[in-house]
Amino acid sequence: MTKHIEVEPEVEFEDEFVTGLKKVFEEMIVFNQVLGLKITSLKSTQVRGRIDMKRDLIGHFSFNRLHGGVISAGLDAMGGLAVMAAIGARHMDETPMQRLHRFAKLGTIDLRVDYLRPGIGEYFELRAEVMRLGSRVASTRMEFLGADGKLLSTGSGAYIVS
Amino acid sequence: MTKHIEVEPEVEFEDEFVTGLKKVFEEMIVFNQVLGLKITSLKSTQVRGRIDMKRDLIGHFSFNRLHGGVISAGLDAMGGLAVMAAIGARHMDETPMQRLHRFAKLGTIDLRVDYLRPGIGEYFELRAEVMRLGSRVASTRMEFLGADGKLLSTGSGAYIVS
Amino acid sequence: MTKHIEVEPEVEFEDEFVTGLKKVFEEMIVFNQVLGLKITSLKSTQVRGRIDMKRDLIGHFSFNRLHGGVISAGLDAMGGLAVMAAIGARHMDETPMQRLHRFAKLGTIDLRVDYLRPGIGEYFELRAEVMRLGSRVASTRMEFLGADGKLLSTGSGAYIVS
Amino acid sequence: MTKHIEVEPEVEFEDEFVTGLKKVFEEMIVFNQVLGLKITSLKSTQVRGRIDMKRDLIGHFSFNRLHGGVISAGLDAMGGLAVMAAIGARHMDETPMQRLHRFAKLGTIDLRVDYLRPGIGEYFELRAEVMRLGSRVASTRMEFLGADGKLLSTGSGAYIVS
Repeated sequence: MTKHIEVEPEVEFEDEFVTGLKKVFEEMIVFNQVLGLKITSLKSTQVRGRIDMKRDLIGHFSFNRLHGGVISAGLDAMGGLAVMAAIGARHMDETPMQRLHRFAKLGTIDLRVDYLRPGIGEYFELRAEVMRLGSRVASTRMEFLGADGKLLSTGSGAYIVS
Repeated sequence: MTKHIEVEPEVEFEDEFVTGLKKVFEEMIVFNQVLGLKITSLKSTQVRGRIDMKRDLIGHFSFNRLHGGVISAGLDAMGGLAVMAAIGARHMDETPMQRLHRFAKLGTIDLRVDYLRPGIGEYFELRAEVMRLGSRVASTRMEFLGADGKLLSTGSGAYIVS
Repeated sequence: MTKHIEVEPEVEFEDEFVTGLKKVFEEMIVFNQVLGLKITSLKSTQVRGRIDMKRDLIGHFSFNRLHGGVISAGLDAMGGLAVMAAIGARHMDETPMQRLHRFAKLGTIDLRVDYLRPGIGEYFELRAEVMRLGSRVASTRMEFLGADGKLLSTGSGAYIVS
Repeated sequence: MTKHIEVEPEVEFEDEFVTGLKKVFEEMIVFNQVLGLKITSLKSTQVRGRIDMKRDLIGHFSFNRLHGGVISAGLDAMGGLAVMAAIGARHMDETPMQRLHRFAKLGTIDLRVDYLRPGIGEYFELRAEVMRLGSRVASTRMEFLGADGKLLSTGSGAYIVS
């Protein structure tokens, strides 16, 4: 492991950056749209999102249960978003557009998901934060919660950032 | 770790079991239908599937690249299918319908995916096999390949089986 | 995934159980002794341990850095200890000795470790807690910290409990 | 994910490189010495090693069973060795000493281990190969086998290479 760069302190993003990132994440990444994954909070130190239950996302016919793949896909996407927010905070000297272009260079190296409890409910909350942002690799932790706040799944991921 | 039960030798499944398993996997698990995930080979020792590229599965707008979540979701589903096939082979004394009912009891404990190369191509092949089938837990290995046979991602999973 | 059983509320362990568990963990599991892994806190909801730096644990000759395997071994052991504490709390109707015997049935299914920062320091703190204790499988999260409280590594594991 | 560089074809290493790498791996990485981890085969496309059972490595007093941490530590070390061999093969234009210095820059990003069967036996074989060697990140797969060739554990890891 190499010398690390600490995650920056909390910064306030401009509306242009937030709007742009939401557009990229919720619309241009088509599969996120299939999942119905929406950003609900975008801070440089933690991001949150939401998925509403719908028929398309069912993994188990008889129990109206979320497919495990919706959880892994959602957590992977949220981990990437958390990295993007942390990178955005580190490069506040760049224009919002320049920072958004950094999203194209981001890639998941690997992902682990632990399924704790069945995904049943009307909607779900997703949370992600960056544990370490290096110059080449970022590590994240993610959580998938039920509408009642109960922890349903946890995840961790590594992302290439440059 | 406890005493293990070896994976059974290759058995030939009846048409009724194969047809039933395909129906459950490709249709009743709705999210698999969203992924377009089809079974192409169903052996007790290895299962194979296929996903055709389509707009809904895009993860990166500018490169027409598969979303990482399609890969994790597909590998999770295929790992479960491999376990189901191995369980099916162990219970050939039961009717096909009895064996199919065992699918409802299957659950993913955890999943790891390593993303090696970008998912670009007209279609993708998925493979999964059971490394160990215990009385309570099964461990699997999965692969995600491009149309040219190149390895794009690998996965491993643990499943609860009873 | 199946119906889950919640982790029990905090219980106070008897001295006999604590002493017995320390003896098993720190002495009878010989490799823990090689690591120098000691229990510093044993609660039913979280366990803590400590490893003092010593020459045997070096992974990188020129930097006096901890071997990654010390971290993975320590986190695996601590995850198992957290499960043991949670199981102990669930079976307070049994004698301490009966509960200690449950340790023999515990096994790691799988483990993930994320290495965030190099393991340099005079001693290290390890923490583990159970995210879900089922009747057959338990899931845990672990942390490996430096003497200054900085997070050096994180882990998650699945354990078979019966 | 970025453009990948393929793993080089098999190359024959000079004695000086092999001897140097064995010295670093088996002696200078002190904890590998504690594990008794020896290199038995060093190819640019696959590496193999061996651990002899000894009292220090016991994880379960009553069964004379290997500690899970010996397995995770050994697999982590072997994954790193496989990356080192692949890097060595890519830089055959450098002197053996220059290539050996690259070892110092190598770091584990994350590791997953699946424990399939209990580690019982007089000795164990470890195998590792690189699935993808990028300019910044390498991904590996590892196996831990019994003296009878039975697969006891599998692993996968991501390493930073520059």
